[in-house]
Amino acid sequence: MAGPEIEALIRQIAKLPGLGPRSARRIALALIKKRTLLLDPLVQAMTSAANTVRVCSACGNFDSTDPCAICCDPRRDPKIVCVVEDVADLWAMERASVFRGRYHVSGGLLSPLSGVGPEDLKIDKLLERVRRDGVAEVILALAATVDGQTTSHYVAERLQTTGVAVSGLAHGMPVGGELDYLDDGTISAALRARRPVT
Amino acid sequence: MAGPEIEALIRQIAKLPGLGPRSARRIALALIKKRTLLLDPLVQAMTSAANTVRVCSACGNFDSTDPCAICCDPRRDPKIVCVVEDVADLWAMERASVFRGRYHVSGGLLSPLSGVGPEDLKIDKLLERVRRDGVAEVILALAATVDGQTTSHYVAERLQTTGVAVSGLAHGMPVGGELDYLDDGTISAALRARRPVT
Repeated sequence: MAGPEIEALIRQIAKLPGLGPRSARRIALALIKKRTLLLDPLVQAMTSAANTVRVCSACGNFDSTDPCAICCDPRRDPKIVCVVEDVADLWAMERASVFRGRYHVSGGLLSPLSGVGPEDLKIDKLLERVRRDGVAEVILALAATVDGQTTSHYVAERLQTTGVAVSGLAHGMPVGGELDYLDDGTISAALRARRPVT
Repeated sequence: MAGPEIEALIRQIAKLPGLGPRSARRIALALIKKRTLLLDPLVQAMTSAANTVRVCSACGNFDSTDPCAICCDPRRDPKIVCVVEDVADLWAMERASVFRGRYHVSGGLLSPLSGVGPEDLKIDKLLERVRRDGVAEVILALAATVDGQTTSHYVAERLQTTGVAVSGLAHGMPVGGELDYLDDGTISAALRARRPVT
């Protein structure tokens, strides 16, 4: 009843992650109502992103330059490489603004059940990079799930031949977390990794 | 760290209703990753909607034709007009697919606190329409809030001179609602409006 163009717009918006038909209708209506404030600038931002953004050939990040700004930044240590599953995880690391090395986006996790094998991840490229650039440490910042841990073990094994130091993110209580709300696995990991209070 | 074009895209997406920075980042990443599946068709749908959709001069609905498809539909009774606050409410009524009359979008509710007065709503236009088309009934389908009820009373008063029958949506239990979860106001309204069980 809303006209074919509006229906098409709602359908397309509802395909975006996290949006259902209800929020898609709300967004479509806002776009139509506030054309100069919302619709036009969004079309422009999307077109500009589509025209300029590419995958960094060094690390797999998205940026308008290749290599990306992080790979080009001389203040960032090329000898420390952090392996993340996805660009979203790279952004999350950057928001914490504590890591000053470079990244390697694996593009996924090993998952025998979903048919994702080693050849689907950029692991050969990581080995090549470690050897070529004389990387000193690889930090595996993958998800603390079964697939994430399987992938971490696999990558660590493959890296053994290069002699590089391999580490993983620590397990423990999230900062601000309350014991009462933690799952058993996290509590026992935090207990095993307990540290002297200074 | 994500490049100026991606940052601009995220900022623009975060302005849409119901989206925060987190969901905006997720959507921006999905758009960039799935360009042919998501980004290109969405730009196209937005451009097409921007170019074709206009406000129906008769009722205030959005459609690519003016008058809109509802106002042009000969099967819909022009003698019954349902007043809604917004096009979103019109869509909600249409989804229920029980109303076979036409609409009048008021464009807002009276709200002395927010400085919305009668001249901001399309009430003169409603009166004109009622007189010109010989409308038999006006159904006020406005929100069951203070502003909604204030507006209903005001519109009903203004319509008195035309002699048209004026009704409002019934108050009561939502279908599928449980007594335990209802607020006191709804329970007492439902009790006062109780009906014989047949």
